[in-house]
Amino acid sequence: MKNLLVAQSGGPTAAINATLAGVVECALSSGQTDKIYGAVNGIEGVLSRRFIDLRQKLDSTEKLSLLCQTPAAALGSCRLKIQKREQLKAIAETLKKWEISCFVYIGGNDSMDTVDQLSAYLAEQGIEEIAVVGAPKTVDNDLMGTDHCPGFGSAAKYIAATFSELERDCRVYTAKSVTIVEIMGRNAGWLTASSALARVNGSGGPDLIYLCERPFDTERFLSDLREKLEVQNSVLAAVSEGIRDEEGHYISEQVQSGALDNFGHAYIAGAGKVLEQLVRERIGCKVRSIELSLMQRCAAHIASATDIAESRMIGIKACQCALEGQSGQMAAVIRESSDPYRVSFRSVPVREAANAEKKVPDEWITPDGCGVTDEMLEYLKPLIQGESKVEYRNGIPAHISLYP
Amino acid sequence: MKNLLVAQSGGPTAAINATLAGVVECALSSGQTDKIYGAVNGIEGVLSRRFIDLRQKLDSTEKLSLLCQTPAAALGSCRLKIQKREQLKAIAETLKKWEISCFVYIGGNDSMDTVDQLSAYLAEQGIEEIAVVGAPKTVDNDLMGTDHCPGFGSAAKYIAATFSELERDCRVYTAKSVTIVEIMGRNAGWLTASSALARVNGSGGPDLIYLCERPFDTERFLSDLREKLEVQNSVLAAVSEGIRDEEGHYISEQVQSGALDNFGHAYIAGAGKVLEQLVRERIGCKVRSIELSLMQRCAAHIASATDIAESRMIGIKACQCALEGQSGQMAAVIRESSDPYRVSFRSVPVREAANAEKKVPDEWITPDGCGVTDEMLEYLKPLIQGESKVEYRNGIPAHISLYP
Repeated sequence: MKNLLVAQSGGPTAAINATLAGVVECALSSGQTDKIYGAVNGIEGVLSRRFIDLRQKLDSTEKLSLLCQTPAAALGSCRLKIQKREQLKAIAETLKKWEISCFVYIGGNDSMDTVDQLSAYLAEQGIEEIAVVGAPKTVDNDLMGTDHCPGFGSAAKYIAATFSELERDCRVYTAKSVTIVEIMGRNAGWLTASSALARVNGSGGPDLIYLCERPFDTERFLSDLREKLEVQNSVLAAVSEGIRDEEGHYISEQVQSGALDNFGHAYIAGAGKVLEQLVRERIGCKVRSIELSLMQRCAAHIASATDIAESRMIGIKACQCALEGQSGQMAAVIRESSDPYRVSFRSVPVREAANAEKKVPDEWITPDGCGVTDEMLEYLKPLIQGESKVEYRNGIPAHISLYP
Repeated sequence: MKNLLVAQSGGPTAAINATLAGVVECALSSGQTDKIYGAVNGIEGVLSRRFIDLRQKLDSTEKLSLLCQTPAAALGSCRLKIQKREQLKAIAETLKKWEISCFVYIGGNDSMDTVDQLSAYLAEQGIEEIAVVGAPKTVDNDLMGTDHCPGFGSAAKYIAATFSELERDCRVYTAKSVTIVEIMGRNAGWLTASSALARVNGSGGPDLIYLCERPFDTERFLSDLREKLEVQNSVLAAVSEGIRDEEGHYISEQVQSGALDNFGHAYIAGAGKVLEQLVRERIGCKVRSIELSLMQRCAAHIASATDIAESRMIGIKACQCALEGQSGQMAAVIRESSDPYRVSFRSVPVREAANAEKKVPDEWITPDGCGVTDEMLEYLKPLIQGESKVEYRNGIPAHISLYP
């Protein structure tokens, strides 16, 4: 019998707990596990040996099902990036001391780097009885080695639905107005591109979409807006938080270095806020900026059923790999076809995903730089299909807590 | 047979179209109506005679049901406040020319003022054949004469659910952090108070809640935060957009007058952003501000089933009043009891609601000024109960359009 340890890391998503549920379900049903531990706060919790007993915490299908609809990381998270060999040694010692044979780490790029380093270290040390396996998650969808990342589909569904609602809200008045929506994504524009899904039922969706993959030209932005304002009253634009100018400077930086508050300190504003101010100065019409902020990654109440199901499967796959002793692997989604949508689950060497970023292919951005192509929509559309059957209690979604 | 005209005004909500559906259903089923017109863009559309035929646009129960799940004003809106007698004269002439006997105006304070002025004008002129009736709506819940406003319950449900999600997102890390969420409400803190509903299932919800009804003391705010940060890692605060200091100056103004952008112009920031900067300067921990922005009023995908049902009933009631010739009335919700929750629908003189603002009673705010009482929760809780059965198409909620 094997002892299994699972932990979560990086920014929360609406689906990372479905992956945790998948790991636990697989461990429970395998007949090969004894202890199933969860480390609290990722690798920090492994280092400080803060473990909880998941067999006891998740002892019913009802609890596992509640876990799948609970946003953010139920085991807590951390931002720790492994920098020193001593850290790897300390982790290895803890794993040995607790007789862990399987360690599944759910997270994004940095966490896959931890899996990579740790599995390499264990191999070096000839410790063959511990398998370390990664399970990908990130709303940014920027991990290599997998067709898409668990968590992304739910964020994309939130963004698509929210744009379809904002579109209606913004268009009720006859006055000329501009609404700029800033979407997560420092280096990859996948989430920003998802705003185009608001068009799937025939409405206009965002009029202009700017991804961080292309240099952002403020003058071009103003002329794009002016052109739209000539033919319609309300213009809705989607921008990545990480848009940069031709020289690579973040648009959001421009205000940070320019504006001072009462105390004479730099004022921190996002790209949306900077562009709002620019439109106010240069065009002069009614303008508003909206940040989808944390809501886009934690809105589990509108999670994609496809994403939740796949996230669970990724957890099952990662646990299977760990039980089979396939250290240094990452569970991945392979797209077999888009229409009809079919995927399979495999494991890939985690090194393929660690420390790399998958950006939006240039050919999926329209030549004018302010839209996305049909190919992009074909890629995105299956990921937001299906509505999770969320259980509500007293008017709000029910959640589960695994630790205080 | 009578001709009926209906229009919508003021800020959109997730439920204002359910009221429109109620008006149309009542008109259709009454057997007393011939034409059912909708004016596009509120009273502006009445003045410019931009009418659409709602019998034709809403000729199936499926369309009426889609209308109920469509956010924002399906007939468009306006911000026009009646200032001149000539405007009343022009409206009256249009109503006479189109042989309208019933005019139902769905909106907030300003719209109820229009209903009041117009019905008084018609009475003065001896025009008895036209009845003008108001149907209340506003996410702010600040209308007098009704226990609560259609649209408020859905916004409150969105806020409660969102806080329950944000709470989990903010608490995954071990680092000390402050999250400040700014909620709509310039003069009334009802929506901000709704953040406390995140606690209905036993979790902590917002740690601190500041309504605009009480003067906001920034030093007190900082000491409240410091106190919380001593015993927990993550502090979540809810603030009304309209919080003001002891002298009545908006907190949001303080940065507007202090910060300058690259062009030397005043920088516009909301209360949340100002407080974020304050915490960064004075406490120095990780801090983030979030604006729930338009999402809180247009998130129809998580509308309260209670709110949608009541909003429809308000439309039916308003139409009935108009058909009965009760000019100058407003349909209203009367709360018979909170537990079990029971309401009735009546009409009240619109003058009771026009140009008045219903604020949160001082005794529903805790003595320390940073929370709300159980009495407040008892008032709010029934309003967010029940989930609308939203129909999704291609992964996002289906909506209906009544005009281009």
